[in-house]
Order: sequence, then C-alpha cells, then structure tokens
Amino acid sequence: MKIEQIRITPVAFRDPPVLNASGVHIPYALRAVIEVEDSSGCIGLGETYGDLPALNNLIKVKDKLIGLSPYDINALHKIIKSEIKPDISQGFANLNPGTHAAKAATNTFAAFEVAFLDLQAKAKSIPLAELLGGIIRKKVPYSAYLFYKFKEHINAPYEADPWGEALTPEQIVAQATKMVSMHGFQSLKLKAGVLKPEIEIDTILALSKAFPKSPLRIDPNANWSIKTAINVANKLDGVIEYYEDPVPTLKGMGELRKNTNLKLATNMVVTSFKEFKENIFTNSSQVILSDHHFWGGLLATKHLAWMCDLFNFELSMHSNSHMGISLMAMTHLAASTPNLDYACDTHYPWYEEDVIQGDRIQFSKGAVSIDKSKPGLGVELDYEKLEKLHQQYLECGYKITSEQGEYMRKFQPEFPFKKPRY
Amino acid sequence: MKIEQIRITPVAFRDPPVLNASGVHIPYALRAVIEVEDSSGCIGLGETYGDLPALNNLIKVKDKLIGLSPYDINALHKIIKSEIKPDISQGFANLNPGTHAAKAATNTFAAFEVAFLDLQAKAKSIPLAELLGGIIRKKVPYSAYLFYKFKEHINAPYEADPWGEALTPEQIVAQATKMVSMHGFQSLKLKAGVLKPEIEIDTILALSKAFPKSPLRIDPNANWSIKTAINVANKLDGVIEYYEDPVPTLKGMGELRKNTNLKLATNMVVTSFKEFKENIFTNSSQVILSDHHFWGGLLATKHLAWMCDLFNFELSMHSNSHMGISLMAMTHLAASTPNLDYACDTHYPWYEEDVIQGDRIQFSKGAVSIDKSKPGLGVELDYEKLEKLHQQYLECGYKITSEQGEYMRKFQPEFPFKKPRY
Repeated sequence: MKIEQIRITPVAFRDPPVLNASGVHIPYALRAVIEVEDSSGCIGLGETYGDLPALNNLIKVKDKLIGLSPYDINALHKIIKSEIKPDISQGFANLNPGTHAAKAATNTFAAFEVAFLDLQAKAKSIPLAELLGGIIRKKVPYSAYLFYKFKEHINAPYEADPWGEALTPEQIVAQATKMVSMHGFQSLKLKAGVLKPEIEIDTILALSKAFPKSPLRIDPNANWSIKTAINVANKLDGVIEYYEDPVPTLKGMGELRKNTNLKLATNMVVTSFKEFKENIFTNSSQVILSDHHFWGGLLATKHLAWMCDLFNFELSMHSNSHMGISLMAMTHLAASTPNLDYACDTHYPWYEEDVIQGDRIQFSKGAVSIDKSKPGLGVELDYEKLEKLHQQYLECGYKITSEQGEYMRKFQPEFPFKKPRY
Repeated sequence: MKIEQIRITPVAFRDPPVLNASGVHIPYALRAVIEVEDSSGCIGLGETYGDLPALNNLIKVKDKLIGLSPYDINALHKIIKSEIKPDISQGFANLNPGTHAAKAATNTFAAFEVAFLDLQAKAKSIPLAELLGGIIRKKVPYSAYLFYKFKEHINAPYEADPWGEALTPEQIVAQATKMVSMHGFQSLKLKAGVLKPEIEIDTILALSKAFPKSPLRIDPNANWSIKTAINVANKLDGVIEYYEDPVPTLKGMGELRKNTNLKLATNMVVTSFKEFKENIFTNSSQVILSDHHFWGGLLATKHLAWMCDLFNFELSMHSNSHMGISLMAMTHLAASTPNLDYACDTHYPWYEEDVIQGDRIQFSKGAVSIDKSKPGLGVELDYEKLEKLHQQYLECGYKITSEQGEYMRKFQPEFPFKKPRY
C-alpha cells in the first residue's frame, strides 16, 4: 500500500462575527483539506489551518510523501522535519500559540498524520478510534462554546447568521439556551476577555443560575492581569469547573495558582512537550488542553495523554474554527483516550458549511457518536461542496486569519491592541 | 475480526550455568508462549516469563479476552487491570525488578499486547515494525552478552553446552571471540557482580584490548557498594560506553553519579513510569533500559522512548532469558523506534532450543534483520518444537527461576546471599 496522490485544497467558510480577546472573527474561517490517496483509490483525509504559511508548508512537502506507506509515520516525520523549518517572520494567530510558525513542522506533520491514519483505518475497514487503541466511549461529549458577538459583519458580505447579537449576560444565556436546545450540550464554555470582567462574571453567574447542573468554563485568552484574574477567581470559586488561560505566561499562571483554588487550564502556555516539561516542574496549569493540530497529531496526543496521567494533570481538548473532518479526528481521538474525560471544545455549531458528504455532523445530548460501521474518520469528501468552499477561498480575499484586531477597529475604531486589556 | 481462542503454553529450554550477582542460572529457563487466534485462523504470538505466578496470571485472564477485537488495546488493559492484582507474597527474580509481582498487571498486559499487535500486523500482511510507526533501521544491532560461567550443571542433566568454563579474563576474551566470530556482534556487555571487582575490571580491560573498536558495557546487577563502584568507575572511565546498575537503589545511583563521569544505565532502579518520573527529578540514571515485557508492552515502550527523548535520557534495551518470539518483538520495536540506537541486549545466543518454525533467528554482523516480506513478528510456531519444550517444562521440575542463589550453593556451599557483595 503506497501513497500515489496527495491533494491540498484551501477552503473558506462563513464565520460569524464572534468576539475574543484579540478582536472579532473575520467573515471567513480558512482551512486546508488534505487528501492522501493510495494505489487502490482509498483516500485518507485531514484538515488543518488554512492560513497561507501553513498552506505553503503543506504544499511544499506533499510531493515528497508520494511513494510512502501510510504506515510509515516515522518516514513522514523525518521528511517533514528536514523540509519544514520554523519561520518566526510568518504571521500567526496570537490567541492560539499552537499555530505559531515555530511549530510549523509539528503542525504540518500533524495534518498529514491524520490523513495517513485515516487511510490505514479505511484500508482495514475499522473506525479510526479502533486503530487508536479501541473505543473507550462511543459518545464523545462536547461543550457549548458561547461567544459574545455582533449581529453581523461589516458590509454584510453574506446574510447575517441566525444567532443575533450577544453583548450582555442575558443575551449569552439566550444563546446558551438555543445552543443547548439544538444540540443538547451538558457543559458550557464562555469565550471571555472581551467585555469588562464584571460583565463576564455576571454572565457566568447568570449561566450558572440558568443551567445549575452544567459544568461551566471561562476562557479570557490571557487578557487579564493577575490582579483581575484573582478578583474574578474569588467571584467564580465553586462556580466553574476550570479556569482557562486567565493570564499570560506560564509564570503568570503559576503566580495565579498560589492565589486561587480553581483548577487552571491552558491551551496557550502549555502548547508543546517542551512547555509540558516546564509545567511539570512548576505545576502552573492543572488541566492541559490537547489539540492534535498543534500537539503533533493523534499519536503525539496519545503520548500527551499518557504523560498527563503519569504526572497527574487532567486532559481536555481545545478547538479552533474547523469543519467536520477535524471534528471527527477530535472525536475518534477522544473516543479512544481513557483520560480525556472532559467535554471537548468545538466551534462546529457556529458554522453551516462543510465539505463532507451528507448532513453536517450531529450532536446528540451534546455528544458526537462513533458509527462503528464507518471506517476511518467516518467521513468522505463531497467534491461539490469542496469546490464551492475552495472558490469561496479564492474569492473571499483573506489569506490569513490573524487580522481580528484590525477588523475589530472597523466596528470600534478605538479598540486597543494592548494585552492584557483588563 | 474477533479473538476466538487463546492458548498459553509454558515451556522450558536448556540454560547454561552462567553466573550473575544472585548465583547461577538453573538448568532450564522458563517461558510462556501466548497464542491469540481470530475467527479467520490467523494467530498472533507472544512470549513472556514462565514462572508460575506469571503463568497463572496469563491463564487467569485468557478466557476473559475471547470476543475482543485485537485492536482493542484499551479493553485489554481494562480487563487485565480489573482481574490481576499485585501480590507481593509471590516470588520474583531479584535481578529483574521488572518481574516483581507488583508489576503483575503490567506484565500480563504486555504479554497479550504483543500477541494482539502481531495479529493486527499479520491480518494486514505488514511487518510489526511498520504497524509500530515504520522501519527506521532494517538491521537491529545487538550486543554480545558475556557471562562468567561454570563448565556444566550439577549432575549433568543434559550434555554440557559448547561454551566451556569462563572464570578468568582470558576465558571471557575467548568467549567473546567465539561469540563475535559466530554472530558478528559489534558491542560487548559483561555480566558482572560475580567475581572480585579487580578480576572484572581486568576482564573489561582485556576485552578493550582484544576489541579496541567495540563499545563495552559492564553490568554488576547492583552487587557493588558505592565505594567499590566509584573505584571501578575510576578504572573504567573512558573504557566503557555506559555503566549499568553498579549499585542498588535510585538514591545510590544518584550518589554514584556525583562521583563519576560515566553514564549510568539501569534496568533495576527505573523499571516503571513511576520510577522514570522520580529519575527526572534526580537524574540518577542517564540511560534507561527498556524491556517491553515489564514496561507494559510495545506501545508503552513507545511512550517511554518519547519521554526519554523529551527528558534527554538515552534509551537502550534489556534482555532476560528468551526465545525467538521475544527476540523478534524486541527487534521490531527497536527497528521502529528512532532513539533506540544502542545495540540491544539479548541472551539468545546462549540457547539452542526454540519454538519457532525453521532455523533459529540469525545474527548478521551482530544484527537481526527485519524481513519485510514476513507479516507481524515474522515468526510462526513449530508445534512439534512447542510440544517438546512444553514436555521439558513438565518434566524439568522447575516452576520458578528465582532459585539461583540456592542452586549456587550446590557449587559453592559458602556462597553468601548478602548484597551488595563487594
């Protein structure tokens, strides 16, 4: 079984004007779709960042992988390590240090590794989760990812999304109520670091009142000073299940840790095994958010999970804007990883477009199920949809997504770039 | 693909009277052969300790695994964890803490895991090393494992082995010369802690003179005091590539470390991930000897290798008495593990019996090759040989191998049990 063809297709899909510490999402999310085809015509799929630097790296190596066995993960690693060098001059989304160009090789590897593993599993007609060690949970729970948001994008590039404005606690509770009624999520996560901390505290307290049984999380993306973070922690102690990236830097998290009983979680200061190692010595974060896209793939995430178990850290999962291929990679990974027992994060409910065949992936009681009758990731490409979103990519005018601050200034000309802002 | 049958067969094979810190090998080595058969008749093989406590654990769980998919490593783990509890009243070989009954579940798991993975690879017609991430090295180098030894066993239970007595530096050089000429080994390892340290130092110096290009190792199995170990280190600094388990306990290794530039290696004080964790904080040992039989299998050893790379430890491989199934598991593991670049240890050249079809496994220039045309481990059972060694097991009278000190007293009635002895 040899790889005969590889195709990389950049796509853009509509992304609502949701707010975060850096600004507001631009009108389109960019992703790259990876197809790895063997001599029998079997195709393994992957999905990763579609920003130009990431895309260029995928394109740079793809032809060098022709002829490899999809089992030869070691060779994939070796080729990518020799071809892709970190380039710190490249742009990256600063809310997600995992996408930093210093991780270019790791992230390029991860993108292909998923497709290689999907191909392995499809060739054997087993679900990817089975290849990854066996299905521990058939239903993988996700959290409702709540965002403050504007009603619509500047200049209305397309019809406004159905979610409306959300800039108050009441509007977030309404958003949560709608999202929970649509998808049945049991856990709720608020993207914070956007409005004044008092409003965000009130939002969590309102959610707690409206959903007394739901575990809650808050993630201000390191947009708070330690003083603010301690103040918020005092108000939310006993209310949230974990406190995600309230302050910048591992050192900052360590300082905060001395001043709160809340478990600290991160996808910003422990984003690599090197940082994981530092965190062992400092115990700055107690919950590590995995993300196979930037931790180096599914097998590297298995190593991460093993190490979390060994070093007594808890494991959860981070999400970027993504489509169904990534959602299923996340789902198969979580389904086969015993200690990944927090509900995972996902942006998926915010989108309407996808590239997969059939309906978009459904959440039932907040969980995505593994269909054991479907091999690999359990999804196949719909080439009409892929072409449509590729055309959208070509026409949308965006090549990188790290323009959220600039875009925010179109809504609020005085928007400050300084961070932490509160 | 479901597992329909599992067979566990204890075997005994002739073991020469080689000496170690505990005494002398009894006339037979005991192993258990594991067969895991799926509905298509495909059989995955494993080999592990044959001592009665280990054997009983295998037998206890085997029927509980019927019906599992061989991919379902998570379920295998869960079943064994619930069925097998540590029993510190059980005996264990004290030179190999990895076989301690506290590791009963880990070791039972490892035995089946190899067979599950062999079955996976055979079902796909790929070598096990390919399943384990791809072949990094087609030829896996082993070291010549040199032993002081008696000419023959007490009461000559069978014809004496062809190696003769080795109780002096000259006799060890002759042994090494013969072993190297037969198998082409490039590295040499001396099992020490047997004779007076001065003789063992002289032995290493004689080997160094006779094989100036060969990396040398010495392993006194923790039979030296720190004072003795420092004295030996001073004599062997610059002569050996690493210094394996000179003294007992992780603390002792840490103390020794302060007094020598030699790299310290271990298969006695870092034998579990818990101990690995302690070693991160103390850096007592710099070279970790893997052994999939007691580290929890091939995938756990991949985690170990990953962690060695991350925490800047080197990785080598330990060996117990074993046959061809274990040798091939070790070979496929090493072939697919990038940072396992030391020559691995093996006792294999000391034996003449095996249970595999065809010839015994050959070393060429000291290495075992992966034959890419052979699926899985690349070996199949010869049921006549298996039956013969099983009968030998039934008739030999031994049920555990931890009687090496008692047996030594038949040669040397004054042999002291105290350790460290020198």
